[in-house]
Amino acid sequence: MVRIIDEPALRRAITPAIAVDVIRDAFRADGEGRTRVPPVINLDVPAHRGEFHIKTAYIDGVSTIAIKIASGFPDNTVRGLPSGSGLMAVFDATTGLPVALLLDNGFLTDIRTAAAGAVAADVLARKRIDVVGIIGSGVQARHQIHCLRVVRDFHRVIAWSPTRERLERYCDELRAEGYDARAAASIEEVCAAADVLVTTTPSRSPLVQAAWLRAGMHVTAVGSDAPGKRELDSECLRRADLVVVDRLAQGAEFGEVSYVRDSLDDGRVVELGTLVAGKKVGRTSDDQITIADLTGVGFQDTAIAAAAIAARKSVTR
Amino acid sequence: MVRIIDEPALRRAITPAIAVDVIRDAFRADGEGRTRVPPVINLDVPAHRGEFHIKTAYIDGVSTIAIKIASGFPDNTVRGLPSGSGLMAVFDATTGLPVALLLDNGFLTDIRTAAAGAVAADVLARKRIDVVGIIGSGVQARHQIHCLRVVRDFHRVIAWSPTRERLERYCDELRAEGYDARAAASIEEVCAAADVLVTTTPSRSPLVQAAWLRAGMHVTAVGSDAPGKRELDSECLRRADLVVVDRLAQGAEFGEVSYVRDSLDDGRVVELGTLVAGKKVGRTSDDQITIADLTGVGFQDTAIAAAAIAARKSVTR
Repeated sequence: MVRIIDEPALRRAITPAIAVDVIRDAFRADGEGRTRVPPVINLDVPAHRGEFHIKTAYIDGVSTIAIKIASGFPDNTVRGLPSGSGLMAVFDATTGLPVALLLDNGFLTDIRTAAAGAVAADVLARKRIDVVGIIGSGVQARHQIHCLRVVRDFHRVIAWSPTRERLERYCDELRAEGYDARAAASIEEVCAAADVLVTTTPSRSPLVQAAWLRAGMHVTAVGSDAPGKRELDSECLRRADLVVVDRLAQGAEFGEVSYVRDSLDDGRVVELGTLVAGKKVGRTSDDQITIADLTGVGFQDTAIAAAAIAARKSVTR
Repeated sequence: MVRIIDEPALRRAITPAIAVDVIRDAFRADGEGRTRVPPVINLDVPAHRGEFHIKTAYIDGVSTIAIKIASGFPDNTVRGLPSGSGLMAVFDATTGLPVALLLDNGFLTDIRTAAAGAVAADVLARKRIDVVGIIGSGVQARHQIHCLRVVRDFHRVIAWSPTRERLERYCDELRAEGYDARAAASIEEVCAAADVLVTTTPSRSPLVQAAWLRAGMHVTAVGSDAPGKRELDSECLRRADLVVVDRLAQGAEFGEVSYVRDSLDDGRVVELGTLVAGKKVGRTSDDQITIADLTGVGFQDTAIAAAAIAARKSVTR
């Protein structure tokens, strides 16, 4: 029998700590060569300015396989509907039979994306950080803070977003959670204060300039999840001491590195999995500038879906 | 709210006549340039000898988009489980929001595949046929007869299958339905009698020899749905007057034409959609040998899923 698990149940099941744990395990599996990741399906629906993205992967050692379907229809907002949606179909990896349908409306994608940011920061950011900078003020900006808090101790947040009202609301929310959160007047102001910078926007032009990066800084960019999107000026990647991607094969088509592929073939681009698996080293000094360019990989979906099902099982027992 | 529709309800909703109608419309849309079909995802799970295939497409004029997930795990049969399974997730094409989950266990794929065979036969086979030949004795062998019956009047069936017991049972079933069905001792014997031949096996080596094809015959091959599979000897395609595929882009990677690509670039390979749309002509004389090589295309899934939802709506009204 196929289990149907809805969004509220999934939100209860997956905490930031659980998400970071299982996503770390998934990247480790990837670094150890225990994943199979087919190319993504991208289906554009120009008639309605929409797009579908389908991702999946097999992880040796995980008993289920998730097939994640995500949709993005920006015009929905004028109708009062969410611009992003989706679900995950989960299959038994041994029999191929359907196990569960996770009607997450994109929640699992959001939290696994933020968890990957935390896993990247854990291997790349300095051990001691004081201020976290956030560009953007949406759902991802919230999850990134919560997941980052699992791997680093910090209380100060400085954020910028193009919409002042949303930015203020975001900072209010963080303050209510106990953070010392402050709205900045510019991205440059955020960069001047942040030890870890996380960019979470759907921008199609560079937001962060290389000149604003400071020694010792770590930057995680998660917005560039499809061709045409980017948040970092190309010079940022050239200036960085180490550039980490979640999937080299995807970086050829989209992500921040896709814009500077020709000038970055000197071994400075490595996969996050190899760092988590201990096959390559991350930050080697407190002065380095590190960048993580995360586009989202199918094994994250398989991992978070398996965790959701396991957590729900333990709840219902 | 996402509707869940199970296999029995889907079987009641989709008759062969409905399936042939909507699949014909889908091929017409494709021929008129009204479809968008991204590449298929193929995920192998070698540890369990399994595979997943994911297909989708947008059809201009159809209000939903199906994402079809099919699995094949041959070792399931020793556990008493079905070797093939799957489901379709259906989304609103205007908003990207999930509409329905069709827990069809592969039924919709089976019937839309058979319906495509019927659509191909309708534009390629002679108007008057006497005997239908079937290679294989599984689910697809049954659906092909039922769908073909929608477009051609016939009563005689001659079939061959490597498993004699399954073959006899297949013929018994057809006789119970009123067909004059006969089990052949060889594929050659089937070819000697059949006006329309349909091959429905998961064979990985050629079954049908070119010498067995007769003037006026139409052959539909549906088994070659993934790399490595084939049912027709390459010479069959070279000998044919017209070779029709469901999707040229897929024929480069799998399907019968993938084995003879280099020697078939003389305009004899056309897409079924262009024939249904009336942009190209099919059979032009009763002496021609025609072959349809069907690998299964995402727009068939989108079309059959939309029909299933529409049929269920009319039932529940």
